[in-house]
Amino acid sequence: MSATHEFDLRVRYAETDQMGVVYHTNYLVWCEIGRTELIRALTGVSYAKLEEEGVLLAVAELSIRYHGAARYDNLIRVHTSLTDARSRSVTFEYVITNADSGERLATARTVLISLGRDARPVVLPEHLRTRLTAGG
Amino acid sequence: MSATHEFDLRVRYAETDQMGVVYHTNYLVWCEIGRTELIRALTGVSYAKLEEEGVLLAVAELSIRYHGAARYDNLIRVHTSLTDARSRSVTFEYVITNADSGERLATARTVLISLGRDARPVVLPEHLRTRLTAGG
Amino acid sequence: MSATHEFDLRVRYAETDQMGVVYHTNYLVWCEIGRTELIRALTGVSYAKLEEEGVLLAVAELSIRYHGAARYDNLIRVHTSLTDARSRSVTFEYVITNADSGERLATARTVLISLGRDARPVVLPEHLRTRLTAGG
Amino acid sequence: MSATHEFDLRVRYAETDQMGVVYHTNYLVWCEIGRTELIRALTGVSYAKLEEEGVLLAVAELSIRYHGAARYDNLIRVHTSLTDARSRSVTFEYVITNADSGERLATARTVLISLGRDARPVVLPEHLRTRLTAGG
Repeated sequence: MSATHEFDLRVRYAETDQMGVVYHTNYLVWCEIGRTELIRALTGVSYAKLEEEGVLLAVAELSIRYHGAARYDNLIRVHTSLTDARSRSVTFEYVITNADSGERLATARTVLISLGRDARPVVLPEHLRTRLTAGG
Repeated sequence: MSATHEFDLRVRYAETDQMGVVYHTNYLVWCEIGRTELIRALTGVSYAKLEEEGVLLAVAELSIRYHGAARYDNLIRVHTSLTDARSRSVTFEYVITNADSGERLATARTVLISLGRDARPVVLPEHLRTRLTAGG
Repeated sequence: MSATHEFDLRVRYAETDQMGVVYHTNYLVWCEIGRTELIRALTGVSYAKLEEEGVLLAVAELSIRYHGAARYDNLIRVHTSLTDARSRSVTFEYVITNADSGERLATARTVLISLGRDARPVVLPEHLRTRLTAGG
Repeated sequence: MSATHEFDLRVRYAETDQMGVVYHTNYLVWCEIGRTELIRALTGVSYAKLEEEGVLLAVAELSIRYHGAARYDNLIRVHTSLTDARSRSVTFEYVITNADSGERLATARTVLISLGRDARPVVLPEHLRTRLTAGG
């Protein structure tokens, strides 16, 4: 399966720390925007809408490696891939690069589980799972 | 009225920016902790509990002046005063200092309005208003 | 003087809080992006570049009023105006609206002072001040 | 090696998201406070001081698993262990629990590398490495 999405963002001053680079957890916020946009592209509905319908996707595990540093005002490219979709979980992988230089800054992976409103794991709605995996 | 509360916190690395000081909006997060702790001290109940009971206090306006800079790992003192409590709003004022040097870093003021679960302004519950103003 | 700039952004999940709306300090982060983009538009140089040249603009005071709530995934419009430029300070005003509905969400004002690398107030470089005020 | 440190913190409103729980990247901010406090306990010097001396510890990789949810105003316990210290890298592991119920909320691991002021990897100062590993 290889549904992918790419978008660019500009680094905010608020995202830097006193080391003069982006604070390390902010790359994970960018990953979240990446999977949101990939879901929108694949399913035609926003994750906001899914939540209203009672489908919550919660991060169950994540890992990230940092290869280089993003800096204030840099243009950053986030490449997101849906790499696995199961009945109760979805896995995304990310490559974050400097959009101007092409330098690879970080690679990450997140596993999300599908929760109902009561915070218990539930099976992903079939129509959603179908659309998520249709790109493969 | 002069109910007050004071607490200390240590500046987190995540709160700094590339200017080498605390990013300016984080002082406002500290103010929020200040009013939460003052409410707990005055009423004996946590704001978390108030929200569960359907009383939301939303920031309607705020202002802050910065006099000096907080830096990573500094011990910071937040002094919070309840300066006005009306039927639908509560005003808090804050003085933020460096706890070691005593240097004044910021002074701020927030007006909060009381909202029901439907996000419309409601009158603060009488028992709450009484306890908030009892410190005066 | 009325140099202005407008840009749109989409609300991130990370920007929400448990009230189901955007956490109140995040509007101020958006204001910062607004003044950064206005400076870029007026002067042709990025604020990142100005900092490298030793010109720091630090927030000295700010105020904001909240009129409505921004929600996750909303498209937000930030309208920034440069309303005053003095030898050592610059004032910006902001109107934040929901880009789809036009609803006004917040109005804000920030005064920034010009600091040198040693964190002392300095006169804004003449070439910069000229370009900032040329839009008037 | 098993140098460890434990501290408690209270969840801030700013740390929640619209799912009604703590936004997932904030656990990683707590981990950072954990390793800062462990370094202080082991070496007697603050990480702030180390940075002034030109020793930067940058996160090179991290992983985290979420087992339960932290909520606003919860008292959280962060247990940090130094599990490996090499010439150019240090590894920490974390267990985050609800301090009242004992419920395990997250387990994490970070590898930090030692950088000089020029952002190139450098060997950790011997005196520091000795003190970091003395707890083993």
